[in-house]
Amino acid sequence: MERESLKIVKIGGKLIEDEAKFSEFLKDFSELEGPKILVHGGGKMATDIAGKLGYETKMVDGRRITDKNSINVITMVYGGLISKNIVAKLQVLGQNSIGLSGADGFSILSKKRPAKEIDYGFVGDIEKVNSGFISSLLKQEIIPVFCAISCTEEGQLLNTNADSIAAAIAKAMSEKYKTELYFCFEKQGVLADAEDDNSVISEIDTQKYQQLLEDKVISDGMLPKLQNCFEALETGVFKICLGDFRLLKQDSKFTKIKL
Amino acid sequence: MERESLKIVKIGGKLIEDEAKFSEFLKDFSELEGPKILVHGGGKMATDIAGKLGYETKMVDGRRITDKNSINVITMVYGGLISKNIVAKLQVLGQNSIGLSGADGFSILSKKRPAKEIDYGFVGDIEKVNSGFISSLLKQEIIPVFCAISCTEEGQLLNTNADSIAAAIAKAMSEKYKTELYFCFEKQGVLADAEDDNSVISEIDTQKYQQLLEDKVISDGMLPKLQNCFEALETGVFKICLGDFRLLKQDSKFTKIKL
Repeated sequence: MERESLKIVKIGGKLIEDEAKFSEFLKDFSELEGPKILVHGGGKMATDIAGKLGYETKMVDGRRITDKNSINVITMVYGGLISKNIVAKLQVLGQNSIGLSGADGFSILSKKRPAKEIDYGFVGDIEKVNSGFISSLLKQEIIPVFCAISCTEEGQLLNTNADSIAAAIAKAMSEKYKTELYFCFEKQGVLADAEDDNSVISEIDTQKYQQLLEDKVISDGMLPKLQNCFEALETGVFKICLGDFRLLKQDSKFTKIKL
Repeated sequence: MERESLKIVKIGGKLIEDEAKFSEFLKDFSELEGPKILVHGGGKMATDIAGKLGYETKMVDGRRITDKNSINVITMVYGGLISKNIVAKLQVLGQNSIGLSGADGFSILSKKRPAKEIDYGFVGDIEKVNSGFISSLLKQEIIPVFCAISCTEEGQLLNTNADSIAAAIAKAMSEKYKTELYFCFEKQGVLADAEDDNSVISEIDTQKYQQLLEDKVISDGMLPKLQNCFEALETGVFKICLGDFRLLKQDSKFTKIKL
């Protein structure tokens, strides 16, 4: 039997903080047909509030450390303020949804990243996604809205990369669904020329990716994102697209990632 | 057909902040059989964090005003930090649960309290509980964990009395279930003598309530709580008990409220 399509859409913190663009995005998201999932990051809101609370952001070798205060702020901001307000906005658009962290339904289980040269603190690497729980919500026509927090088996909430959460969910759900993964970020897609926002590469397969790597076209920030995309495709995700807040529109420009 | 029992347990912020007592409470809660719901307040944690963020707590005539900053802090603290950590702890006890506000599933709809002599700000009076949504979670053996936040039809989150949320849920679910409401607070029940913590009145019916009112035994804080209890019993709730963090134990002392 043909699997039903499932769309997993991931949005970053910058988009959430832009009221006009975010309103437009939510309207487009609400018009998507069929089962869907939203995954959101939180951007600088958590850092701002941590600063106001007098918690200094610890950095080691340019990497952020998530200490006890940080994970609490992240839980408050991503899991509370942002999550519940997104759900409220979606409800007004007639979209029945619930805001979830990895603790809810034990849906996203992770392990604390082991401390080697650097101890990242309360950061999680995803081990398991509870696809059964997510399916049961989808069957009730509930839209799961996930924030960037996973949970250990011992009940510790962990800061987790939102792209990784979106990809892990897509992979886990690929058994039951034809999964389509949509990453909304600041640009309309992967750019051939970093200085030209219109130079969107429409399709990147493994061959093109190698070529772009050799030509040093891909920025440092985009490298891990693309590697994750290929890994997701290799493990069963059906379709992956990168674009900006207009990605879900019919006529949008975007980059499609293929094997 | 005989309705199945459903237990709704409400706990206050003070209990959540006492690590040892709260651990013990959660263990007892996890041992309750059958469908159950947890409702939690947040105590002074939200006020503490609001203070740290430099938001002054506005008071008018001794009543707290929930301004824009306050509702955001409440959403962060109750809907995020407390909610997700309770869920994580319950998951470790093998209790599948999800943390909800009134926005999730549009489960608890309210209207902003109208400003008369005082404008309370973003405070909600409950209008409707989505019992169908809650039932569907219970049927999947998921424990709903509600924080003290409701939502308007326009998507505005509102600060809402946790006792009121517990009672409203119990009333709404009384159509499908034989509902039992448990209020856990600082004392083992309603006290005959405010100075004697052991003077727990074991049962209060409407007649006894009148007598206690005349004898001026009931404190100001307890008055609205008891009025709410009687109103809940009159509108279909089957059983109501008041006690402390040990209320759910087999041998606990408590006050039972009857019509």
